[in-house]
Amino acid sequence: MARVVVEVMPKAEILDPQGQAIAGALSRLGFAGVTDVRQGKRFELEVDGSVDDAQLEKIAEALLANTVIEDWAIRRIDGEA
Amino acid sequence: MARVVVEVMPKAEILDPQGQAIAGALSRLGFAGVTDVRQGKRFELEVDGSVDDAQLEKIAEALLANTVIEDWAIRRIDGEA
Repeated sequence: MARVVVEVMPKAEILDPQGQAIAGALSRLGFAGVTDVRQGKRFELEVDGSVDDAQLEKIAEALLANTVIEDWAIRRIDGEA
Repeated sequence: MARVVVEVMPKAEILDPQGQAIAGALSRLGFAGVTDVRQGKRFELEVDGSVDDAQLEKIAEALLANTVIEDWAIRRIDGEA
């Protein structure tokens, strides 16, 4: 049993209104020094040994990310995290 | 200018219906071997040198995570990622 993390973020050229709202709120709340915020998603999957990297890529592309507007990355965490 | 990643995930003892829906969809779509999915959030912040770790913790606690139901972690990415 392994843990896999899939990180999904809006592509750099895509506007991110959620992130912009957070950046605006930070400055209104008095937190200076944060110049940009982008918000994405993070999925933790528990997979068994039958799931290989090719299948993980299919899962990320088909279900977890909207590849038109989002980039995604897969990281395996093999420790007992 | 440094990039900071804040990862926010539902606490282990909290039900995660979004993640359960994804796990159910995976099995219906024929992806076997994924036993559990949890969905969280991932924030990328661009911060300048004036923002220290204590301030980042305040930002994560006050604005990015709901600490009643979510755990959060801060990672600094100092490379030009």
